Amino acid sequence: MSRKEMILAAFFYNPQGDHRLSWRHPNAPGQEIFDLAYYQKLVAEAERAKIDAVFIADHLGIWDNFESGVAHYANTRLEPITLVSALAAVTKHIGFMVTASTSYSEPYNIARTFASLDHISHGRIGWNVVTSALTEEARNFGLDGNIAHATRYDRAREFLDITKALWDSWEDGAVVIDKNTGYFADPQKVHYLNHQGDHFRVKGPLNVPRSPQGHPVIVQAGSSDAGKALAVAHADIQFAVIRSEQDGIAYRADMNERLARQGRSPDSFRLLPGILPVVASSQDEALDKQAALEALMIDRVSVDLLSSWAGVDLSAFPLDGPIPTLPDLESYDGWRTWLKLIQTESNKGLSIRQLARKIANTGSVPMVAGTARQIADQMEAWFVAGAADGFNLMFPLLPDDWVNFMRQVVPELQRRGLFRIEYDFGTLRDRLGLARPRNSFLA
Amino acid sequence: MSRKEMILAAFFYNPQGDHRLSWRHPNAPGQEIFDLAYYQKLVAEAERAKIDAVFIADHLGIWDNFESGVAHYANTRLEPITLVSALAAVTKHIGFMVTASTSYSEPYNIARTFASLDHISHGRIGWNVVTSALTEEARNFGLDGNIAHATRYDRAREFLDITKALWDSWEDGAVVIDKNTGYFADPQKVHYLNHQGDHFRVKGPLNVPRSPQGHPVIVQAGSSDAGKALAVAHADIQFAVIRSEQDGIAYRADMNERLARQGRSPDSFRLLPGILPVVASSQDEALDKQAALEALMIDRVSVDLLSSWAGVDLSAFPLDGPIPTLPDLESYDGWRTWLKLIQTESNKGLSIRQLARKIANTGSVPMVAGTARQIADQMEAWFVAGAADGFNLMFPLLPDDWVNFMRQVVPELQRRGLFRIEYDFGTLRDRLGLARPRNSFLA
Repeated sequence: MSRKEMILAAFFYNPQGDHRLSWRHPNAPGQEIFDLAYYQKLVAEAERAKIDAVFIADHLGIWDNFESGVAHYANTRLEPITLVSALAAVTKHIGFMVTASTSYSEPYNIARTFASLDHISHGRIGWNVVTSALTEEARNFGLDGNIAHATRYDRAREFLDITKALWDSWEDGAVVIDKNTGYFADPQKVHYLNHQGDHFRVKGPLNVPRSPQGHPVIVQAGSSDAGKALAVAHADIQFAVIRSEQDGIAYRADMNERLARQGRSPDSFRLLPGILPVVASSQDEALDKQAALEALMIDRVSVDLLSSWAGVDLSAFPLDGPIPTLPDLESYDGWRTWLKLIQTESNKGLSIRQLARKIANTGSVPMVAGTARQIADQMEAWFVAGAADGFNLMFPLLPDDWVNFMRQVVPELQRRGLFRIEYDFGTLRDRLGLARPRNSFLA
Repeated sequence: MSRKEMILAAFFYNPQGDHRLSWRHPNAPGQEIFDLAYYQKLVAEAERAKIDAVFIADHLGIWDNFESGVAHYANTRLEPITLVSALAAVTKHIGFMVTASTSYSEPYNIARTFASLDHISHGRIGWNVVTSALTEEARNFGLDGNIAHATRYDRAREFLDITKALWDSWEDGAVVIDKNTGYFADPQKVHYLNHQGDHFRVKGPLNVPRSPQGHPVIVQAGSSDAGKALAVAHADIQFAVIRSEQDGIAYRADMNERLARQGRSPDSFRLLPGILPVVASSQDEALDKQAALEALMIDRVSVDLLSSWAGVDLSAFPLDGPIPTLPDLESYDGWRTWLKLIQTESNKGLSIRQLARKIANTGSVPMVAGTARQIADQMEAWFVAGAADGFNLMFPLLPDDWVNFMRQVVPELQRRGLFRIEYDFGTLRDRLGLARPRNSFLA
């Protein structure tokens, strides 16, 4: 890759941090997670550090397939699109990658929302496209259980085809506002989709003009085969679960081949592995911090989480006994990334209790813990080796780990010439080195 | 009514003003309608005047049933929910009444969005519930034409039942965040809907805690029989088309009877007629202003608008000939308010061209034009007579008419003791004198 500087996205789903019970930490926020001011401070820290974007994950329900979720899990939060629009109004440079589901929304509504956000933010918006893998989500939208994995991805692909066409339905320059002639728009530059597909029928055009980025940046996070196919067809950025430098190099090579088959250059695509950065004055102190978070885990929650992700009710088995047979990955309609990780770990002779605590505590991506210099070393190694174009930073504890990273690791990366020291003018796409998409209605 | 001060909402759909071709006026905004800064200035004017709320209308498509719409109508704009969230971040007191459709969205998504907006704004949000009457909207959501009127309202009622239950699904105080015991929530205070109705199945609970207002303020604008029934069942405020003081008194009496049959007190309900205020140094100057706007109308657009609202393609008839037979109101699945108005006017011997210009130019609500004192006189008369609890101010031209009203009419109303001179603390509900709703899950 020719990029000299890495891309950094600062992630959260739980506003208390990515560790599943981080909300119990003495330094974690309390009721202020329902107040804009909390996020405004966090984002201001990231903007001072010249971070590319804040990345907000989402689910359309609470985690309650197993009873402990309601009592012990931090299940309530603000809705990300409203949150990001408010944050866009009080920031100038930082981008936002916001999650929305193709399974439980309509393309016209999503196209409109993101086009509008892109105008409001002057081109700082990305859409993290998800297909929603939780049965808890399905049950809030008229279903008994998940839509089949293949159907979800098929719908997602059609959804993105439509959304992009809606974003193109007013060409750049279509809105002329000629007060003398009475032409608000040039009708030659306004296009109809008349889309009729397996999942949707949409006439168009959109009622928002083409936005500063043409299309908001498209992010995709599923690394199943269907997920990779969707990414290659539609995404600018993939947020991936990568566990080592070698993994990352292999993953990137695979993606490059897939991109080539689609006629896309590797440079049209950015790979952002997730990492859990924990900054401390020494590696020991970093491990102590992690141990303090792990101590907050509740056995019941860890087993229920494992059950939920594995698609098997493990509470029916002895806690200190072996892991029972798990579902087949290829026919699993749940969250495959988690099942795959659990399958890998389940071959190591751990009991249900041990595996549950391990899985529940470590999260899906590798922890990178140590001094600012040690963390920068590891990030540099992955970046230089071509295992990553940058990172999605999934801090175990907020706001502490976030603030520490911004104040300690970012300056170290800047000293090494690996990260910008000032924002350039332009959109999020410009910053990421991604071309503004051509309009699909133009030959 | 015991209220001493009227309620004022400042309305817009077209960001250039409510006159259909106001965008052509020399003082109308240009491309800045796609920029947050334009709205921020408008809303700041209203907040300085201590206005209750900004009211934003919406449609889920462009107006293009007839060809002239694409060329001549101001069809593109920002999406109101994202716009309002951004505006909430840069204001402190003013409320927002935001339109969203029950026909082309899911209750879980809407409940979440409005609960989140209510948290972000510290209780300043209202939802203007619409059922979407345009065929242009239907065609962006998989349909060939409108959903039948009765079905739309039936769906809306069930949609609101679900949305309110979702807002109640976390009782006040359900989120305890007890770090020591590990209880994030009190499970006894978290409720499931398990709703199964004609239109929706929703399990719940929501993933946002109960919001500052309990339920965002519910606004309803349809004045058909089904619209009134929906308002009585669910709304706090009705935005109504009322053409005279007598109309308003009769309308209010009818609504009070309907409320009583539902077991509701008149004081739980606010009636806001729409008016088109045009402030000038004299009544003549106000009429000149209106004439200047009317001169911007394009014949083709006026006839096409009339066709669209009447549900008949009038371009097939001689422009200077009589109005043909119009659809029957009771079986009409389009926008009944407009058809009713057109039916009334069509008995006055006007040609198609004359009626088209009249309808297209005057809008659906009465113009109140004159000096600040004259406008205040008329508003005072309606308010004191019980024909209105306040007004939805639909300015023909933005930003001029908006700014003039805020700077000239509001001070006059304040001098008369008819409008607040400072915001009190509290939510939009508090300001409107509406009780915070009881939680439906509590006996």
